[in-house]
Amino acid sequence: MENRRRLLLVSNSTLYGGGYLDHCQEHIKTFLGAQVRKILFVPYALHDQTAYATLAREKLESLGYGLDSIHESSDPREAVRKAEAIFIGGGNTFRLLKMLYDNDLIHPIRKRVLEDGIPYIGSSAGTNVATVSINTTNDMPIVYPPSLTALQLVPFNINPHYLDPDVNSTHMGETREKRIMQYHEELNTPPVLGLREGSLLLVEGNKATLQGKTGARLFVRGSAPTEHEHGTDFSFLLNESFKIV
Amino acid sequence: MENRRRLLLVSNSTLYGGGYLDHCQEHIKTFLGAQVRKILFVPYALHDQTAYATLAREKLESLGYGLDSIHESSDPREAVRKAEAIFIGGGNTFRLLKMLYDNDLIHPIRKRVLEDGIPYIGSSAGTNVATVSINTTNDMPIVYPPSLTALQLVPFNINPHYLDPDVNSTHMGETREKRIMQYHEELNTPPVLGLREGSLLLVEGNKATLQGKTGARLFVRGSAPTEHEHGTDFSFLLNESFKIV
Repeated sequence: MENRRRLLLVSNSTLYGGGYLDHCQEHIKTFLGAQVRKILFVPYALHDQTAYATLAREKLESLGYGLDSIHESSDPREAVRKAEAIFIGGGNTFRLLKMLYDNDLIHPIRKRVLEDGIPYIGSSAGTNVATVSINTTNDMPIVYPPSLTALQLVPFNINPHYLDPDVNSTHMGETREKRIMQYHEELNTPPVLGLREGSLLLVEGNKATLQGKTGARLFVRGSAPTEHEHGTDFSFLLNESFKIV
Repeated sequence: MENRRRLLLVSNSTLYGGGYLDHCQEHIKTFLGAQVRKILFVPYALHDQTAYATLAREKLESLGYGLDSIHESSDPREAVRKAEAIFIGGGNTFRLLKMLYDNDLIHPIRKRVLEDGIPYIGSSAGTNVATVSINTTNDMPIVYPPSLTALQLVPFNINPHYLDPDVNSTHMGETREKRIMQYHEELNTPPVLGLREGSLLLVEGNKATLQGKTGARLFVRGSAPTEHEHGTDFSFLLNESFKIV
């Protein structure tokens, strides 16, 4: 079966010096196009879901889209089944994934995106949960989800807010690169795409392209990390046989 | 029953510019005293356990102690039952806690420390697992332990490598303080002691004292964070009734 997925996976919702979604608003408009009228927003990653939905609604209305927040729905599964497009916002990835499991939304979202082909936008935690698992989140495990396995809309993992080592730092906590390499010390772990703030990954069917201005760093188990500029064709990451080393 | 625990909980094993355990070696010698001859080392937080045990052995032998590494024992539970002192080193906290569960060591270690009163030294991940839970680790969830509940040798949590916000940063990932506050948005969460690199917490029975030079920041659910200098008496954190807000 043809893979109908359409994903816009954003590293971060807010770039330094800008407002909410400012840096990716043109990407969002191009991605959603003129057909989508209303977006289903998932604010589960933040504690104050109402305030979060208000922020997202204001921004997306300014871009010409309506917004329903799933937390205002009496039947979240039905809301997913009817959604024209889904946007999962950032916050704490553990909290977000736990809520997706608690509300039994993993399979309905997968079906809508992979089979029905509705557009999926994720930012930060919302990008993490789109991947194989949340094993490469930066967030604190403030709650315990029933699994770290996520929506599996792509066969690799992403590290959002990817941060290069600070050569001037005297802090001895592990660098981001070190942490991802520790993940790859474990067997059967998929590639990890480190998306710097300001970067986005566009996935359409079996084609994946790096967008934004800041580039990405790719980690594959058993290989040295590699640097990639915007415009890079990452379609090879969508090949299931590339996935596990 | 009197609580016999004796704990030395170190934020970090290596301080910038120094060697392994250099900054806390005098604390370790004072803590263990002349009676302890041999320490049981737990290297589970790092992938290369043999290299890790070699590093720890060289350092502790230079301080006058012998070292057995638990990964070299055919019966880890028996090794704990016979241990004169336990030292759990840093690395990845998820990996460490999963190994403690997989090897069925949670209860044996608790018994040795809380009932038999053998000294326990933890650094970084080894400090995290000494607390209520690993909900406030900084580490990446590279594996999925069966629970986030840890050894519960004290009734609060610690955030090792505590890092103050960098006012010059343009990075938009959450600050450490923000992450801990997100933890406290969840119900029934215990206090979190943010131990800066260079700080240690000494616990003897029902007395807890902050050591080192860099101080600590205390987070209690529903209250503003507070700053504490070395020498602070943190015994109130050991009071179970203070624990949950």
